[in-house]
Amino acid sequence: MLKAIQVLSSSSSSRLFGCRWKPLATSGPAISLSANPLSHHSTTAHRSSEPVRVYSTGSDPKMEAAPSPPSPSPTALSAASSRKINFCQWCGGATKHEVPDGEEKTRAICTLCGKIAYQNPKMVVGCLIEHDNKILLCKRNIQPSFGLWTLPAGYLEVGESAMEGAMRETWEEAQAEVEVLCPFAQLDIPLIGQTYIIFLAKLKKPHFSPGPESSDCQLFSLEDIPFDSLSFSSMVVTLKLYLEDVKSGRLKFHYGTINKRPGTSPSDSHAYTLDNHMQS
Amino acid sequence: MLKAIQVLSSSSSSRLFGCRWKPLATSGPAISLSANPLSHHSTTAHRSSEPVRVYSTGSDPKMEAAPSPPSPSPTALSAASSRKINFCQWCGGATKHEVPDGEEKTRAICTLCGKIAYQNPKMVVGCLIEHDNKILLCKRNIQPSFGLWTLPAGYLEVGESAMEGAMRETWEEAQAEVEVLCPFAQLDIPLIGQTYIIFLAKLKKPHFSPGPESSDCQLFSLEDIPFDSLSFSSMVVTLKLYLEDVKSGRLKFHYGTINKRPGTSPSDSHAYTLDNHMQS
Repeated sequence: MLKAIQVLSSSSSSRLFGCRWKPLATSGPAISLSANPLSHHSTTAHRSSEPVRVYSTGSDPKMEAAPSPPSPSPTALSAASSRKINFCQWCGGATKHEVPDGEEKTRAICTLCGKIAYQNPKMVVGCLIEHDNKILLCKRNIQPSFGLWTLPAGYLEVGESAMEGAMRETWEEAQAEVEVLCPFAQLDIPLIGQTYIIFLAKLKKPHFSPGPESSDCQLFSLEDIPFDSLSFSSMVVTLKLYLEDVKSGRLKFHYGTINKRPGTSPSDSHAYTLDNHMQS
Repeated sequence: MLKAIQVLSSSSSSRLFGCRWKPLATSGPAISLSANPLSHHSTTAHRSSEPVRVYSTGSDPKMEAAPSPPSPSPTALSAASSRKINFCQWCGGATKHEVPDGEEKTRAICTLCGKIAYQNPKMVVGCLIEHDNKILLCKRNIQPSFGLWTLPAGYLEVGESAMEGAMRETWEEAQAEVEVLCPFAQLDIPLIGQTYIIFLAKLKKPHFSPGPESSDCQLFSLEDIPFDSLSFSSMVVTLKLYLEDVKSGRLKFHYGTINKRPGTSPSDSHAYTLDNHMQS
């Protein structure tokens, strides 16, 4: 089970001058969105009381493999992550797996040089690109989710900002030059150690074509977004939040946590709950 | 030099229904804020045409050391980062440093098992805590920036969301239980491979005390925030943006990139530019 977390009350607001953010999650149940807002004629959030687990999402070298089997707590996940480290990357010494002095979590500690190998979540950055009332999607030409549609996105690299990384990935996957308009969403997937940072963007020129990691790139009108053929839960959530915003007539910034529903397939991109959703 | 990046035009807006975000940075010059808004009686952004470099921020085991000497491009930084990896953490084999097939950046590749060790930026998560028109700060009891003031913040761990991590760090450093109200800022520091995610929060109870990493915790009224004794540029930027928002009467979500001004000391937390600043 996840450790107890602070759940936002729906009446939460900034004491100083009224936070404009609306915490949507309330105590207890998680919030999930309908699997396909278009097929259900509604994108209204509804409650789910299902607990949280996670499953591996695959072995794409650009996507970090999730721990397998699923671990029940952040502490156990952190320990499991550290136990994958058998050797020191700096001196080559064997590691031991202990809680360092003054810390609380198990780490891989080098038995020769004493250095600690910290393991941290990774950021995936991407662009939600609007053009002529349509959205640009790429068909994945690599595993995982080969053949499924995605926003152009990938791991942030050392030396670049999230905005730069999102633009680079868009160039690599869709050969498209974009202008970033604003951050659109931060979606944490804690149990596979990923955080998605998605920017709203527009094409600088109406030119795009599949890069090496894509087999196709297409503009989709909002009613034709292929929700049944999207690659990852993060893409389903991002595009559903975007459709909700379009429907409401107001773009917002969204923060939330994506948790996989227990007992569902790791490849089912609709089997999730969106928890602690806050929006501007 | 940084690679060319997309710079936002001040007229950028969402084509669909008017993006409410205001890209503040314009072509060419970076934007910097005055070093101390209180001493200058203004927090208005002004232009700076200084280029971008970075310096090490220290060796705190909780803070990733920056590359030294400073590297001029993201690609060089990525290569420099990979060259620190001499051995495979999985099998202990020696690494070679090459561009893998189908990729563009130099990586550490194991000469025995062939695995690639990817290096990615890390997220630092923290809370900006309002209480009785004051802000809670912690005096650092560890290096770097020993004895200087900070918001409670630290590295996000595998298995937790950014919000959970921010609450955990607040507990560890200030023994304070908080309710998160909304995301307040994402500040990338690309050249030391860090992204700060700061949440606005409030105390659940008016109780706090220094944890092991703090020598003191205090509530500061907004006019008494110790800008000359803050630990990191990220804290200076966050608190200045917060004061600007207070002054304007409206809280916003902020995205931006912090770059160190060339020729300045790594310990000078005011020697930065805030680039590509976008706010809700």
